[in-house]
Amino acid sequence: MIYFDNAATGGVKPENVVGAAAAAMRACANPGRSGHALSLACAERVQKVRGLLCEFFGAPSSDRVVFTKNCTEALNIALLGCIKEGDKVVTTVAEHNSVLRPLKHLESSGVAVRYAPLTRGGGIDIRALSAMAQGACAVVVTLASNVTGAAPDIAAVRQAIPADALLICDGAQACGHQKIDISALGIDALAVAGHKGMMGIQGSGALIMSARCHPRPLMFGGTGSASYDLDMPDFYPDRLEAGTLSYPAIVSLGEGVLWLSTRLYENRDYLVYLTDKLLHGLEEIPFITLYSRTNPFGIVAFDVRGMPSEEVAERLSREHGICVRGGLHCAPLMHGALGTSGLVRASLSPFNTAGEVEYFLKAVRGLHACA
Amino acid sequence: MIYFDNAATGGVKPENVVGAAAAAMRACANPGRSGHALSLACAERVQKVRGLLCEFFGAPSSDRVVFTKNCTEALNIALLGCIKEGDKVVTTVAEHNSVLRPLKHLESSGVAVRYAPLTRGGGIDIRALSAMAQGACAVVVTLASNVTGAAPDIAAVRQAIPADALLICDGAQACGHQKIDISALGIDALAVAGHKGMMGIQGSGALIMSARCHPRPLMFGGTGSASYDLDMPDFYPDRLEAGTLSYPAIVSLGEGVLWLSTRLYENRDYLVYLTDKLLHGLEEIPFITLYSRTNPFGIVAFDVRGMPSEEVAERLSREHGICVRGGLHCAPLMHGALGTSGLVRASLSPFNTAGEVEYFLKAVRGLHACA
Repeated sequence: MIYFDNAATGGVKPENVVGAAAAAMRACANPGRSGHALSLACAERVQKVRGLLCEFFGAPSSDRVVFTKNCTEALNIALLGCIKEGDKVVTTVAEHNSVLRPLKHLESSGVAVRYAPLTRGGGIDIRALSAMAQGACAVVVTLASNVTGAAPDIAAVRQAIPADALLICDGAQACGHQKIDISALGIDALAVAGHKGMMGIQGSGALIMSARCHPRPLMFGGTGSASYDLDMPDFYPDRLEAGTLSYPAIVSLGEGVLWLSTRLYENRDYLVYLTDKLLHGLEEIPFITLYSRTNPFGIVAFDVRGMPSEEVAERLSREHGICVRGGLHCAPLMHGALGTSGLVRASLSPFNTAGEVEYFLKAVRGLHACA
Repeated sequence: MIYFDNAATGGVKPENVVGAAAAAMRACANPGRSGHALSLACAERVQKVRGLLCEFFGAPSSDRVVFTKNCTEALNIALLGCIKEGDKVVTTVAEHNSVLRPLKHLESSGVAVRYAPLTRGGGIDIRALSAMAQGACAVVVTLASNVTGAAPDIAAVRQAIPADALLICDGAQACGHQKIDISALGIDALAVAGHKGMMGIQGSGALIMSARCHPRPLMFGGTGSASYDLDMPDFYPDRLEAGTLSYPAIVSLGEGVLWLSTRLYENRDYLVYLTDKLLHGLEEIPFITLYSRTNPFGIVAFDVRGMPSEEVAERLSREHGICVRGGLHCAPLMHGALGTSGLVRASLSPFNTAGEVEYFLKAVRGLHACA
């Protein structure tokens, strides 16, 4: 089997990640809930992972790292927690439904939402975004399109929007593939998927916040702190972490960061190499239209002339054991902007090989005869 | 080490649970997100677990089983999703902060919340609850107090409240310890913790709903379905499951159900035996006041005369390697009702032994000399 669906979820995890997560299931207490030695040891481990993420993403302090079940929960906390009735918010047509659907919900509560278009090159039109952003309380931008891998210059976005607007970023596809320092980039809320480039397991995610980001809680419940108080604690991370934490998932995320810490740039270069090899190979196939350019996320979107994307994905799976994703990729406005009704997306990870890319190209070339 | 903190999280998981969850980390795609063979296989596995939970809890159909990250998320979906401004809701003083805090939040949005008291025996006063429940849209009751293990007769609760009131139950401590059939009991929403009696890993949880329970979504995002639509799908479970599912946690929960399915009654009898042994042993210690009676949840709460509960827990951990929990257990109103400012809670699982109970009793007896 060739797994080229890493933008949906990382198909292969580093051994230290799986090993540590499995160990965390075997001997665990509830971190932060009791005062005995095992609970304290688990709580210390959670704090250690918080510290690792704080450093990895340049957060101002560990308590600005909130664990979530996935990137979507992190985005919901940031969006529903920071934006309120009467506010204006600007986003882009490149966003995933994890951004679009919470914003649509906010729109129904009296929030004005504007969508920045794409440039002709398929990137975010920062000039248009800048013009829309006057008076906005928040700007919501993906760090990399999950459809094409197109990535805005986020420092330029920060410069182009009002200083007092919160910059909320969807890091689902970018995290783990490039250095992201929220303090240096002026990002106020970074939503992290733990199970893609970050190499953790499904069920791991995080919200990384600047010092001025203060979301209202999305959920309410026990925190093991200030338990006499029926309000959520007003300190972080407890304010945003109700209920039992996903200890094995958190451990896996910490191990992912440790694994990445010595390999981030090496992985990036290798993934650019594989992505370019795939792009160049597809370019030479006459019935292929490419929608991606070189990128460090391993994302390559394309169309096969005369064949719906789902059919391509289904045939590649059935005939060649290749896993790619067709359809809309939960990003309907992006497809509208690109003028497509679905694309084939191959998405690579550092665990893929040049040989797999060659096998894939051969399989795609073979689609034509039967198209 | 003796782990008697199973009401916080199950300390030992069955081997099939850990093995299957670890395997699910190693070879996984994103269930429901792509059309290739591996994704479809994962989606099928998720559906299988949904079916197992549906049968285990007597849900009307599999699509009434929603996966969550913990019991708190399930309660938040039910409470914030079903109760709205102007509504009246009745709950009890025995509830955990996972119920009390969402309800406090709703109170600030114009919801009237009433709290049923305890009887002298420490159970829920169902007559008082019944009187309060007239005109209530929902009644929220724990199936077992996480402090004392006291459990209301839930069929009697259902009889005592208006037929049109939703019955929302916190199953954190009860699930996995007794048969709970939501259809037979007339429960409309059952919140399940996956990592306690259900034997799954932390990060697993579920909301089991009757056919008339229709919560508004708590989170918004990709579902892999109806992706062209910026509103959440209106069908279940998609409507309430935004973002990537916690596949390893879901697999673990399914394995937990399989493990329990042949052992539920045997485990219950064994846990009642261990609990009674612990209760009788503590009864004979003169400086102990018990706050629990026999129960199938393995929960025993007590006070050590002249010693704060946290100090007892800390000493048992340090001097004897015993894990129990002191303090409020995130249930402040219950302690108010019991007239305590904290209790020691020992909570057992079917993996504990009579020898551990004896060792524990000896350790507790030894506290006195130094009290």
